[in-house]
Amino acid sequence: MGKTFELEMSVRDYECDIQGVVNNSVYQNYLEHARHEYLKTKGIDFKEYADKGINLTVTRAELDYKYPLTSGDKFSVTATLEKESKIRFAFFQDIFLLPEKRIVLKAKIIGVALNAKGRPYIPKEFEEILDN
Amino acid sequence: MGKTFELEMSVRDYECDIQGVVNNSVYQNYLEHARHEYLKTKGIDFKEYADKGINLTVTRAELDYKYPLTSGDKFSVTATLEKESKIRFAFFQDIFLLPEKRIVLKAKIIGVALNAKGRPYIPKEFEEILDN
Amino acid sequence: MGKTFELEMSVRDYECDIQGVVNNSVYQNYLEHARHEYLKTKGIDFKEYADKGINLTVTRAELDYKYPLTSGDKFSVTATLEKESKIRFAFFQDIFLLPEKRIVLKAKIIGVALNAKGRPYIPKEFEEILDN
Amino acid sequence: MGKTFELEMSVRDYECDIQGVVNNSVYQNYLEHARHEYLKTKGIDFKEYADKGINLTVTRAELDYKYPLTSGDKFSVTATLEKESKIRFAFFQDIFLLPEKRIVLKAKIIGVALNAKGRPYIPKEFEEILDN
Repeated sequence: MGKTFELEMSVRDYECDIQGVVNNSVYQNYLEHARHEYLKTKGIDFKEYADKGINLTVTRAELDYKYPLTSGDKFSVTATLEKESKIRFAFFQDIFLLPEKRIVLKAKIIGVALNAKGRPYIPKEFEEILDN
Repeated sequence: MGKTFELEMSVRDYECDIQGVVNNSVYQNYLEHARHEYLKTKGIDFKEYADKGINLTVTRAELDYKYPLTSGDKFSVTATLEKESKIRFAFFQDIFLLPEKRIVLKAKIIGVALNAKGRPYIPKEFEEILDN
Repeated sequence: MGKTFELEMSVRDYECDIQGVVNNSVYQNYLEHARHEYLKTKGIDFKEYADKGINLTVTRAELDYKYPLTSGDKFSVTATLEKESKIRFAFFQDIFLLPEKRIVLKAKIIGVALNAKGRPYIPKEFEEILDN
Repeated sequence: MGKTFELEMSVRDYECDIQGVVNNSVYQNYLEHARHEYLKTKGIDFKEYADKGINLTVTRAELDYKYPLTSGDKFSVTATLEKESKIRFAFFQDIFLLPEKRIVLKAKIIGVALNAKGRPYIPKEFEEILDN
């Protein structure tokens, strides 16, 4: 599907834990990195937003762990963006083990943009993505 | 409630990100640490289990982010354990900002124990907690 | 010795890596956390400094790894502060496994304070500690 | 120089801290990842070694922080390996901001290989690299 953003990454050994697999919390790092890279392709820079006092904030994360990544694995992280409510948006993200594209994790990350006063709003750049 | 485990922790500056608040993924670290400490009080040691080939594995995480923690904050992390299905168990965990006990995060972490052959089962020590 | 700051901490399982021991980079987190806690006892808050545009910056780190920490270990981190040059200061820090006080790591962390213009200077509060 | 290994990477936002720059400890992650990738090109796999009971262990790290990396930066990490003593080897590693190749960090990481009995030795595969 043309709309889906996809980023290839690989496991770094320090991301693995005692069990020899990528620690649960690290997948959130992967997902966040892919979201930020995706937004950049749409002209939205997380750090510039933060510098302007606009904070992109996660309000809910749902993560289904399907298969563990381990040392040496290559994988891809996808991202699509949908409107969740008047003021909330949702990223749907999958992680696939490469090259076989076995599903590793499915996530729904709900977020909101807060302006400098802490009020939620949908930035113009987001409207444009969501309209697509 | 007598059954609820509670662990006090404090934010470390390196856990905060560009926005000046604790990064989303770090809360999973807090939750995991509290779960492991809770299990230890019940005679279950995560690393010993791993050494014996028993892997305690998260299959789903639901995280509701309510209020951000920041540099210098003290907080508590709770944990209760319930049976989710024949082979799955669920931790219900809250994070509270101290001393006012403002809710920071609510989480439901569903897990499974896999024996050395990768087969799910409920370890005896878990049965005993779940029976309580 | 009265001047030495000491902070007790314990290993969190997610800080351990494939080898089952605390990952090398994590010790820098422990050391940073202890430095910041030490500075707080002297009225110096890392985040407040950052907010005012004063950045406390590490320019060199020397770390001697003596003995690995692992899951479940308790340890203490010390900190003393000395003048290294006209504009640089040095933290001498040790990590000890508890309760036997076996040496785990010895570190010398050299730093500098940069004002809002990026110029190095020794903040007044530092002068007072260094004079002690 | 033909012998130098070089790996291109980019900063992930979660690696930046309150000051808006990459946290000091994260550079050790970058360096470790580059070392492991370098060793892989020589047929040495960190995890396989760990599984066989051979632990590659850092005994000393010297890190000179020259210029901070921040959100969005691309950089390269180099690695060369030299014999440090009969049983110790040393990685010399630089991090360069791209594309201008401004120096970000210079590191010397001294290590040792411990066999299953915890005895230091130089694995055959290392001898071959060191001989080059």
